[in-house]
Amino acid sequence: MTPCDNYTGIGAPNDCAPERAASGQRSRNNRFSHLDTLFHPRSVAVVGASSGIRKWGYLILCNILAGGYTGAVYPINPKERNICGLPCFRSLRDIPGPLDLVLITTPAHTAPDVLKECTEKKVGGVVLISSGFSETDDRGRRLEGEIVDLCQEHELPLIGPNTMGIISTHSDLYATGAHARPRKGSIAFVSQSGNLGVQLMHWAMDQGIGISLFIGSGNEGSLNSTDLLEYLESDPATRTIIMYLEGIRDGRRFLQVARRVSREKPIIALNGGRTDSGKMAAASHTGSMAGSTRVFDAACRQAGVLLARKPSELLDLSMGFSSLPLTPGNRVGIVSLGGGWGVVTCDACREAGLEIPPLPEHIINKIDRHLPPFWSRANPVDLVGTLDMQAPIVAVEELIKSDRIDAVICLGIIGRKKLAQLQMDSTRRMNPDVTGRMIDDAMGAISNYEVKFAEHLLRLMEAYNKPIVGVSLAPTGEGSQFQLEGGKYSGVFFPTPESAVNVLAQMALRRQYLNRLGDTPAHN
Amino acid sequence: MTPCDNYTGIGAPNDCAPERAASGQRSRNNRFSHLDTLFHPRSVAVVGASSGIRKWGYLILCNILAGGYTGAVYPINPKERNICGLPCFRSLRDIPGPLDLVLITTPAHTAPDVLKECTEKKVGGVVLISSGFSETDDRGRRLEGEIVDLCQEHELPLIGPNTMGIISTHSDLYATGAHARPRKGSIAFVSQSGNLGVQLMHWAMDQGIGISLFIGSGNEGSLNSTDLLEYLESDPATRTIIMYLEGIRDGRRFLQVARRVSREKPIIALNGGRTDSGKMAAASHTGSMAGSTRVFDAACRQAGVLLARKPSELLDLSMGFSSLPLTPGNRVGIVSLGGGWGVVTCDACREAGLEIPPLPEHIINKIDRHLPPFWSRANPVDLVGTLDMQAPIVAVEELIKSDRIDAVICLGIIGRKKLAQLQMDSTRRMNPDVTGRMIDDAMGAISNYEVKFAEHLLRLMEAYNKPIVGVSLAPTGEGSQFQLEGGKYSGVFFPTPESAVNVLAQMALRRQYLNRLGDTPAHN
Repeated sequence: MTPCDNYTGIGAPNDCAPERAASGQRSRNNRFSHLDTLFHPRSVAVVGASSGIRKWGYLILCNILAGGYTGAVYPINPKERNICGLPCFRSLRDIPGPLDLVLITTPAHTAPDVLKECTEKKVGGVVLISSGFSETDDRGRRLEGEIVDLCQEHELPLIGPNTMGIISTHSDLYATGAHARPRKGSIAFVSQSGNLGVQLMHWAMDQGIGISLFIGSGNEGSLNSTDLLEYLESDPATRTIIMYLEGIRDGRRFLQVARRVSREKPIIALNGGRTDSGKMAAASHTGSMAGSTRVFDAACRQAGVLLARKPSELLDLSMGFSSLPLTPGNRVGIVSLGGGWGVVTCDACREAGLEIPPLPEHIINKIDRHLPPFWSRANPVDLVGTLDMQAPIVAVEELIKSDRIDAVICLGIIGRKKLAQLQMDSTRRMNPDVTGRMIDDAMGAISNYEVKFAEHLLRLMEAYNKPIVGVSLAPTGEGSQFQLEGGKYSGVFFPTPESAVNVLAQMALRRQYLNRLGDTPAHN
Repeated sequence: MTPCDNYTGIGAPNDCAPERAASGQRSRNNRFSHLDTLFHPRSVAVVGASSGIRKWGYLILCNILAGGYTGAVYPINPKERNICGLPCFRSLRDIPGPLDLVLITTPAHTAPDVLKECTEKKVGGVVLISSGFSETDDRGRRLEGEIVDLCQEHELPLIGPNTMGIISTHSDLYATGAHARPRKGSIAFVSQSGNLGVQLMHWAMDQGIGISLFIGSGNEGSLNSTDLLEYLESDPATRTIIMYLEGIRDGRRFLQVARRVSREKPIIALNGGRTDSGKMAAASHTGSMAGSTRVFDAACRQAGVLLARKPSELLDLSMGFSSLPLTPGNRVGIVSLGGGWGVVTCDACREAGLEIPPLPEHIINKIDRHLPPFWSRANPVDLVGTLDMQAPIVAVEELIKSDRIDAVICLGIIGRKKLAQLQMDSTRRMNPDVTGRMIDDAMGAISNYEVKFAEHLLRLMEAYNKPIVGVSLAPTGEGSQFQLEGGKYSGVFFPTPESAVNVLAQMALRRQYLNRLGDTPAHN
């Protein structure tokens, strides 16, 4: 059912690994723990299931099936007999046995009747996909009020209305119209925009970023972002929380909850509607009216919430926080295959408030053995394009173990494979003296080296408990993460240095915050 | 020879099209026009050509051959007989007939002798790849002085030393060790970092960005960035110039030249070493000592140079400037498939100094016909996920033709194909009632629509001479540009809204600058 039940997580920011997936009781105490049934249901009904392949009632049903959900799935539509090979039911009442989760895609005006059926059936929770509520007009607002009252009266948990759905990877439940299926992981995402939310799920999938839950909270008629944050506080599969927010109704409670949750789990929020025009757009979008942005941003920071400035940062930062040890400070060592990238990374670090300390003499001497005499002999360590395979390994290790360095950014070592591939392709075409076998061997050696190097970075992170952020420059073609079976951390390889710098800058902020609290956090 | 010889360019920011590639005289008057022979040589020799597939002398030779260079190619190495199927020559003297370009990869100390041979042979230019000169130590500095004097005495144009090479797409010459081969285009790139430069050429290739010239200027012992800028001023194939700079020796002359060139061709520069640490890193990298960054940055702006803040921006901005009409002002209309992306794009625009004007009533009425009553009725136009294929077309057209809007950002229309593909894949697997034929037809319709929509954007840009910047959100899988045979402009589709906003913000700055000059530029 909930494969991460017995996942303790403490000290283990790495993603929830499949071997931890044995069943068991969720050991927690949370006033929203009844939402477990909604997010990890044994059975799902789709009201408004359709055979029209562009309809929501089709797309969600098809996604649930294609995503490999193993519980019972009931399409509800009185006018259809079969959809995707499943028999259709006329109504929820006709479903035999208990029912955990109901997804509703029928028009807004049908919602009250369907919800009544849900209460009769004593379902565990509802995701109301349909739009046409408070985001439209007065009638919609009244209708939303009506259904919210109904849910409250019957203690029926409701996500939405006007949502794109939910994803619960550890229950193999992909219940969105968009067919993005990111892998299982430890990042939970609460999004007040469905459109933006599912797009980020596509990016997460493409980048190999592991997700625990995605919740499009929609109009938040009933369950709101703060409730969901409280739920995630005790969700054992979730280690990092990202939020896209356009408006918080009870700011005080949100900040209170955020302050508590952020001590244990990093919260990264993107506040949409930071500007006059953005605020107006947000008002017409989710009907929310945000207050003063600066005040809210400042309050968020005081509550330990890290602020992203654009959607892609939500993913970059959450990947960093969920994969790497938290930096003990802001002193960065840089190892670069070439000078220019070292320079721009230096600039980016300094502009983000990070320090680039000078290299101690004994480190220079160690690295000296592997590089020609004209290497930089300074931080950043410019490897001057060396072909010495040992040089980057030694450089990173010497930096990360130094007590004058808190974190390392390593540029261009992982990712060379793709560049080498182009060179080998040319050789294959143009050089009759080199056999295909020789080329394959050379490529194999480069691939092997990259794996060994990444493994080495993971071992160093475990040994010294400091982050090493990779920058691949070229896309690795294998996502941005590198995982090792049973490892405590994952390797992270961003395509550009700015993302790596941003992760370390935000980590340093979080470290400062935790230090101010006087806490030594068990983990990130 | 130089396929873009008769490319007039005026009013045509679109990339140099192959049909313009008839030969002819370069009609220009420039004190660096003799560099044409270096950048568009009829014959090339590689001194230090090697059969060792990891050596520079091999990688460059192999790249020239694999890149489809059609001139004569001479490997020079007294110890080898054949490399890549080509006969080796003992020295430059042994080459029969004239020789235009010599690439030198042999150790630094051999350079004076090789250069003497070059002068005897009266070659058109030299690219000195080898390192070991002023970037290393006093001996290297003396050696560099020696060869620079020699070149000056014999008026031998020299790029480098310590460079990764050059790319001249319109002459099919890819003379770098990295085998990135971006397509022919109108963007020239002068990079003081070879490593950073060739990486950006890889990115340009991946994104389908068209390049005219790439010049790794290396230590700039002889020809420097300012000289190259002057050359590019009259290069008919170059419409936009990007530069990565770590230090300018004669700042006054650079600014003078930049001020003149930027009136006709946008110049976008990334200054590496903006911070204390970055400056130190740059000093150890290219041996250059930059002055005060703020002063230099301000002077650049006054000379009409646009400043990028990170390497990827060099490509984003140059793609925008080389593909789109220059915006007449800073008032942006936004069309978004969903609300959240509209909100974050609004925020990004406002934070970049762009305006989001309200929608005139008549535009609201026009769009009303295609959208459900609860659409935003405001700027941004939130298409509320409509399936009405006409809606985005109408919305973009109404905005771009309004005299209250200077530019349009269009989010999520192009790029849906990839998301639809995932949905169709699920249907193919899970739905026995839908045939493969039906799925292929549906995907065909979506693909067709995207092409028609992109074509429509191009027509609108021609008709109204205002930029429409696309944001695909999902990668299109076909690069970031969309071209139409014979079209004046190209479609640009960035993966994220920030890039689109940045292009418009920098365009607005350039427009302001040109307006202050009192000029009406012939083009961007």
